[in-house]
Amino acid sequence: MSKTWHLPEDRFFDPEKSQKKAAMEIYERIKDLPIVSPHGHVNPQLFTDDSPGFGSPSDLLIIPDHYIFRIFYSQGLRLENFGIPYKNNSKKEVEQSHRKIWQNFADNFHLLRATASYSWLAYEFKFILGIDEVLDSENAMQIYDQIEEKLASPEFQPRSLYKKFNIEVLCTTDGASDSLQEHKEIARSGWDGRILPTFRPDSVVDLQNPNFKAEIQKLSESVDKKIKNFEDYLSALEKRRYYFKRAGAVSTDQGVLAPVTNELSYDEMNKLFKAALDGKTSPSNSKAFTGQMLNEMARMSCDDKLVMQLHPGVLRSHNQFIFDRFGADKGADIPIQTEFTKNLRPLLNMYGNNPRFTLCLFTLDEYTYSRELAPLAGHYPSIRLGPPWWFNDSWNGMSRFFDSVTETAGLYNLSGFVDDTRAFLSIPARHDVWRRVVANWLAKMTVTSFIDIDSAHELAYMLTYTQPKAVYNL
Amino acid sequence: MSKTWHLPEDRFFDPEKSQKKAAMEIYERIKDLPIVSPHGHVNPQLFTDDSPGFGSPSDLLIIPDHYIFRIFYSQGLRLENFGIPYKNNSKKEVEQSHRKIWQNFADNFHLLRATASYSWLAYEFKFILGIDEVLDSENAMQIYDQIEEKLASPEFQPRSLYKKFNIEVLCTTDGASDSLQEHKEIARSGWDGRILPTFRPDSVVDLQNPNFKAEIQKLSESVDKKIKNFEDYLSALEKRRYYFKRAGAVSTDQGVLAPVTNELSYDEMNKLFKAALDGKTSPSNSKAFTGQMLNEMARMSCDDKLVMQLHPGVLRSHNQFIFDRFGADKGADIPIQTEFTKNLRPLLNMYGNNPRFTLCLFTLDEYTYSRELAPLAGHYPSIRLGPPWWFNDSWNGMSRFFDSVTETAGLYNLSGFVDDTRAFLSIPARHDVWRRVVANWLAKMTVTSFIDIDSAHELAYMLTYTQPKAVYNL
Amino acid sequence: MSKTWHLPEDRFFDPEKSQKKAAMEIYERIKDLPIVSPHGHVNPQLFTDDSPGFGSPSDLLIIPDHYIFRIFYSQGLRLENFGIPYKNNSKKEVEQSHRKIWQNFADNFHLLRATASYSWLAYEFKFILGIDEVLDSENAMQIYDQIEEKLASPEFQPRSLYKKFNIEVLCTTDGASDSLQEHKEIARSGWDGRILPTFRPDSVVDLQNPNFKAEIQKLSESVDKKIKNFEDYLSALEKRRYYFKRAGAVSTDQGVLAPVTNELSYDEMNKLFKAALDGKTSPSNSKAFTGQMLNEMARMSCDDKLVMQLHPGVLRSHNQFIFDRFGADKGADIPIQTEFTKNLRPLLNMYGNNPRFTLCLFTLDEYTYSRELAPLAGHYPSIRLGPPWWFNDSWNGMSRFFDSVTETAGLYNLSGFVDDTRAFLSIPARHDVWRRVVANWLAKMTVTSFIDIDSAHELAYMLTYTQPKAVYNL
Repeated sequence: MSKTWHLPEDRFFDPEKSQKKAAMEIYERIKDLPIVSPHGHVNPQLFTDDSPGFGSPSDLLIIPDHYIFRIFYSQGLRLENFGIPYKNNSKKEVEQSHRKIWQNFADNFHLLRATASYSWLAYEFKFILGIDEVLDSENAMQIYDQIEEKLASPEFQPRSLYKKFNIEVLCTTDGASDSLQEHKEIARSGWDGRILPTFRPDSVVDLQNPNFKAEIQKLSESVDKKIKNFEDYLSALEKRRYYFKRAGAVSTDQGVLAPVTNELSYDEMNKLFKAALDGKTSPSNSKAFTGQMLNEMARMSCDDKLVMQLHPGVLRSHNQFIFDRFGADKGADIPIQTEFTKNLRPLLNMYGNNPRFTLCLFTLDEYTYSRELAPLAGHYPSIRLGPPWWFNDSWNGMSRFFDSVTETAGLYNLSGFVDDTRAFLSIPARHDVWRRVVANWLAKMTVTSFIDIDSAHELAYMLTYTQPKAVYNL
Repeated sequence: MSKTWHLPEDRFFDPEKSQKKAAMEIYERIKDLPIVSPHGHVNPQLFTDDSPGFGSPSDLLIIPDHYIFRIFYSQGLRLENFGIPYKNNSKKEVEQSHRKIWQNFADNFHLLRATASYSWLAYEFKFILGIDEVLDSENAMQIYDQIEEKLASPEFQPRSLYKKFNIEVLCTTDGASDSLQEHKEIARSGWDGRILPTFRPDSVVDLQNPNFKAEIQKLSESVDKKIKNFEDYLSALEKRRYYFKRAGAVSTDQGVLAPVTNELSYDEMNKLFKAALDGKTSPSNSKAFTGQMLNEMARMSCDDKLVMQLHPGVLRSHNQFIFDRFGADKGADIPIQTEFTKNLRPLLNMYGNNPRFTLCLFTLDEYTYSRELAPLAGHYPSIRLGPPWWFNDSWNGMSRFFDSVTETAGLYNLSGFVDDTRAFLSIPARHDVWRRVVANWLAKMTVTSFIDIDSAHELAYMLTYTQPKAVYNL
Repeated sequence: MSKTWHLPEDRFFDPEKSQKKAAMEIYERIKDLPIVSPHGHVNPQLFTDDSPGFGSPSDLLIIPDHYIFRIFYSQGLRLENFGIPYKNNSKKEVEQSHRKIWQNFADNFHLLRATASYSWLAYEFKFILGIDEVLDSENAMQIYDQIEEKLASPEFQPRSLYKKFNIEVLCTTDGASDSLQEHKEIARSGWDGRILPTFRPDSVVDLQNPNFKAEIQKLSESVDKKIKNFEDYLSALEKRRYYFKRAGAVSTDQGVLAPVTNELSYDEMNKLFKAALDGKTSPSNSKAFTGQMLNEMARMSCDDKLVMQLHPGVLRSHNQFIFDRFGADKGADIPIQTEFTKNLRPLLNMYGNNPRFTLCLFTLDEYTYSRELAPLAGHYPSIRLGPPWWFNDSWNGMSRFFDSVTETAGLYNLSGFVDDTRAFLSIPARHDVWRRVVANWLAKMTVTSFIDIDSAHELAYMLTYTQPKAVYNL
């Protein structure tokens, strides 16, 4: 017999009675607030007139979600069995039957227990898809049928779910040269959902990108002007930012290995840039270039007031075998130690006191929370701390975040929640975890008399709703 | 309507009933113990016959306290509005009205919620200043008046508060060439308070200090002997230590960026020293010199038994704009990663087994607790671990400290509490937090049967009273 | 009057009622499971026909246990007083009376309170040795007599205790050239206890080992073939692994300062190896050689399926004075920061996807848990995370481990418990702490509705019994 989901209304809260009571009281007032999602990776095409919808249950929950299939891979299962496509599009060993993929998922679903993904999936199955039973080998096909039926219904089309999820605004992530075609279509369609682009220039600021020259060519085409030198390049980026801003963008985003920001002169940058166009660069040149580009992007943010998001510290595609066979974003990205204090100093000395500048910092190295991030955020007016990201986006990850940063940074220097997901269905689940952590943490602060219950309500409202809107100018 | 402070006797303790009961029982026996304050930055002039007193309420609580105004700065408010003086003493935009400063403080007081400073201020307002209402925009001036009246009364003069706070001994921090005039005056005055100096040679061991030559000149004058070479310099430091010791000093203190202690020969040091007097040095020479000076200071401690305190790992004045305008100690000091195991090895191999030597280690990098500091303290007889310092001097910071170091280092290798504050009024508040954390943590150990309640009482007494006296020879 | 031990059945569990109830329920089903001990340092000679037994009470609990006497040393007591032998075997100041050693132990037993060792000793005294009173100065000799009597009885001989402890398998650690004489004797004796060797090649892969040449000579003798070059050397290691495997070994173990695994060619390795045999090497050459030897060992593991254990990050014998006088393993080993992501990449790119390979990772740097170890284990099929080790093998150390790694790595990528002890009597105590942490942590997961109680039972069984057997092929 299959189990049924046990997800009581007081789930996740500390079991101690007075804290749980306070947590429930705080949560009650914030749980139904609109969702503000200032950063993520949902495909905007979902919301165009000709939305492709979610595909099969396996398309919905498994194939695109590296948070999940990496766990199966780590247990010796083959990615092919979960329908993960080869880089070269060969179908040789890749499972094509979405029902078989689903069965494999169900057979191994128990391996996810105690992970953050499991808590999101529980929410999605029970509260979004209306499935009462915990997925297992026996009920797999029956549940597949149920979900398939749901996904065919009008109320499970992306725009309907957007409304059902009570999303107020959803930001996507888009390449620097992107036409933003989908965003424009959505705007033109008259639909009142708010899907905003975000300017992500990573591929055009990384000299070691093997496609660098092609990327610059695309950038050049996007502004309809040949890029011959660093000046042209900066000018193109400025134009693209303006283009994004006009399309509704409120922020930029950059992912770098280390947040180095040593200052380089125009001439140095010009030299590095032109050499790279000629196919000549080196890891150290590339690092220096990207570092100075953080400064340039900060400078542009002071002009156009796009919030600057920084996501440093991941060594992407750590596993060459997986990269060669399946490509990027396959669960093989591994964090490294990250240094903020020295690395960000040049940038902060130039722009950190500028009232027009907002720098939203993320990290996968939580061992910088109390040492570097909280003191930086507790001083610089430009800095806001993004919530725990990726591997740390979990109950304990968030709880440690609040325990580690607030006494130094205060709560007003946090950005509120950012779901950063490509899994649309997980958005309400993830925001619900944040709201529950906020409620539970403020409840603890209340029952231990650090703050009063009115403050707790007010701060909970801020951390779940008003703060992300304020930080991201939404 | 303004709120009133809610600070029940069981505040901060874990809400679980059995733990709270044990915590209350443990706390009850230690809460009124005399305060031993072996390290801090209170101005000794407060306690001389012609004490300047505390000034205005804004002088008392805002203008000198960078723990507090940094939060306002981080939220986009100007330091000028809080009366922070310019480095060049210009009054141009600096608010001169202490009432207006107070109003600005009150208008933004809520921004401090959930910080450590907020918990100290709550204590100070309620239990020291007798203010029942939580400060806000409306009651600001009324509370200002109340405090101003208090501060004018005889029982709110520093010497009276010293007695009221039940302080047994209070150590200040003083430059190597300081005359210790105030300490002598206090001694001569017949007042029985114990205000002891601490020898802090930072300005004369940092070759990169722009005033290095002038500092050496001052040092020279303080020992009435020209300093021509490294030998003269060491001899002057030894004399000054003796002078401090005769004035009651029990310890020295050094702040360094990294606790490097590689050994340099006399000749190498002599060369570096003389070059620096000629204005020639470099970051690496300076680092090497300061490193060897840690060894020299340790050697001297083995002679004169002054406890050696080490506070490494802060990048001072990270924000150049703030430093240029307002100077040092303005909330812009940011910690960096700190390495103890390799860095301290040379020093420890020379002096770490010496029974006359005590090295009290502090850190702002709590991510060394279980990895480096606890194993070092759990082996070397000379090492004692100072309590969580600065950004970590908070409820959660202290709780993590106990959870992370005790299982390896034991409790006997801790130094007890050090408030390290320049805010005299916060002393009882800070010691109360320590006592509550100690009680709460030992209560948890008791109700989980790791130790018995008699041990808890005994260890609580040690951690709050006998241990700092023993470690610092007080 | 002496105290008596208070070790109730619900000890260590969170005091909150619902969690404690669930913890008790989970613990009840796992507490009596057989002990699986896949890695440790118990002397196999204890279990041969002519077992030396445990010696005196001081031999049993004090003299060999650096976890304990380091705390006494850290408090200014001399190791000589605890019978720790000099390296040169001189008896000059070393206490020879085991009764006096025991009295010194008793006089200072209170110093251990709140350490992990204290919780193990409590268990050993009360539940293994049947001593009700807490050791103190007064009862020291009486307790010595009681233990001495026990140790003379048949039921306290090692083989009897092995059975009483319900040990299913116990792995020792043995040098690469070891004859495994004792293991063979045990096998031949017909006794049904399972004492398996583990292949530890540290002394023959460290070019800086002052006895390197002699160690290679021993290795050469053990395979009865002269080792002239790197090929001979690799072949000898392969033969020895085969020898160990035939004697029952299931794993290898390596301790390195940093887990560097940069790839070197055969020619480079051959050159480094032959130079070292000629007494020529350098720290950097040695580091490079050891690094590539990790790769070689991983390669061999893919062949012979011996599990590869890696214990990096300890700076051994940090205190030169102690090393010169007493030798290695005297409580003076201090961890350093450890990097896994970049360092292990070469090895993992070669063998990390090999289904025949298992790499069991340990660390003393818990500040890599969420950043590096959990993401690595949550991706690579070859990686399993060993439990908290050495200084982290404690209640809080384990609790932080589960809180930090599981949400990312899941529970199936953990290895279960490894006691890693040379103190035979502490084995049941240590496994009991693990079982209690597992029960308490899963209870928290249950009462907060992250998992259901059936899952908790199942996962508890896995983490305490089936998982170490599966990971180590036992």
